[in-house]
Amino acid sequence: MKVVTVSNIKGGSAKSTTAIHLSESLSRRGKTLVIDMDMQADLTDFFLPNLSPDSVEDKNIMTLLLGKSSISEVIIPGKEIDIIPSTLTLSKLVRIASDSFFLSQQLKKALESVKSKYEYVVIDTPGSAKYELTSALYVAQLVLIPVTPSKWAIRAVNLLLDEISQTESLFSAKKESAFLPCLFGASKKHRDILERLKTIEEIPTLNEIPKSESIKTKTEKNQFLKKGSNPWHAFDILADEVIKLIDPESIFPFSG
Amino acid sequence: MKVVTVSNIKGGSAKSTTAIHLSESLSRRGKTLVIDMDMQADLTDFFLPNLSPDSVEDKNIMTLLLGKSSISEVIIPGKEIDIIPSTLTLSKLVRIASDSFFLSQQLKKALESVKSKYEYVVIDTPGSAKYELTSALYVAQLVLIPVTPSKWAIRAVNLLLDEISQTESLFSAKKESAFLPCLFGASKKHRDILERLKTIEEIPTLNEIPKSESIKTKTEKNQFLKKGSNPWHAFDILADEVIKLIDPESIFPFSG
Repeated sequence: MKVVTVSNIKGGSAKSTTAIHLSESLSRRGKTLVIDMDMQADLTDFFLPNLSPDSVEDKNIMTLLLGKSSISEVIIPGKEIDIIPSTLTLSKLVRIASDSFFLSQQLKKALESVKSKYEYVVIDTPGSAKYELTSALYVAQLVLIPVTPSKWAIRAVNLLLDEISQTESLFSAKKESAFLPCLFGASKKHRDILERLKTIEEIPTLNEIPKSESIKTKTEKNQFLKKGSNPWHAFDILADEVIKLIDPESIFPFSG
Repeated sequence: MKVVTVSNIKGGSAKSTTAIHLSESLSRRGKTLVIDMDMQADLTDFFLPNLSPDSVEDKNIMTLLLGKSSISEVIIPGKEIDIIPSTLTLSKLVRIASDSFFLSQQLKKALESVKSKYEYVVIDTPGSAKYELTSALYVAQLVLIPVTPSKWAIRAVNLLLDEISQTESLFSAKKESAFLPCLFGASKKHRDILERLKTIEEIPTLNEIPKSESIKTKTEKNQFLKKGSNPWHAFDILADEVIKLIDPESIFPFSG
């Protein structure tokens, strides 16, 4: 089981969109679990459109982090992709829990108990530096950082890298990270931001996910991308890149 | 000076859009200060599009809340509307400050020192229950709650009402609140959510802000609404409704 945490300390950075379509690509390669750790619950809405907020009130990612539910109680099984839903109440976690250490240990233990069941786990995180972010960084083999060409991009990336280092030193664990450029255009301003990103040491920048209306509309309509379309291929390539980073041995020799 | 805090514990609830265009309507009635208290910094981007994130690193809403800057140091003057900018670093406030009481007192003191300068203050808040939210609720005469027809709407509203009661009892202060329906359509599902909203006791529901492409595009382009257009009128009426709630005596007799 390999865990990919999708993160960026800035809302509107295409985190949820990336997590959704990457999960779909990975699920074609192996059984995949998606964990929604953002109280905005975009992934929960996407994967479980008919779920009522009341029905997950007692069994969700927050009750799992707090040790009040077991992982089997909070997983909602899907056909290809299982999901642990989020809830708005997660916004209060920071006041309920006194620090992030206990939460991180709970999440790690929970995932270990299902490691034979899943090949991949994808975690979506909040656009903020909160306790649940630390937990999601702690359990990750790879932190995938979608970056959009906003003027806050480099600042947000630096804040996240701080969080990753803090988590690494808190738990003595080294993490892989990678940047994923999303929504970049050909303008000089966009290219400048991308060039600055590429100068950030030791963190690879993956192939760009192209700006695409169909990614936006499909996601809003709770649909996966059309098989064979350009955006579909972009996420298919991303899945291969991700696997190469987290699990180099699983790549078939000479397959690319 | 009257303070309106725009709040909803759910991202994508039209908070920033409401704060922007309400500020513009209020500024036609009296000098207005806008405080961006959301680390996503949408208001900062709207009002100060040419500002670089680095230039506000040492003077922003976070340094004000922490008592490291005076209010005159953090206000960036505009023609009609002055602004206190936000910053991504605000995401770390919850780890820097041990509780929200000190922050709230700092904000109250700061605003009192400029009360002769401004008629209205509009505060945008994060989509989360964080310390800065408590401060913004504490200093408000009116909490304006934009509500969009999401399935999380009623749950989010209840969470926010909890926060307001907690702030009220923490500081022994009573707050006015009002719901502002945004983006509602004619469908049964939308009307049901609106009806459920209207049954929530003692909180008035204001006139709806209509769903409008021009609100979206204008806001994205950093432009105010076209004078005389339908959306412009909706926010003009909203400004009157808001003033009626926070400052009934300022309404000219028989003017409506």
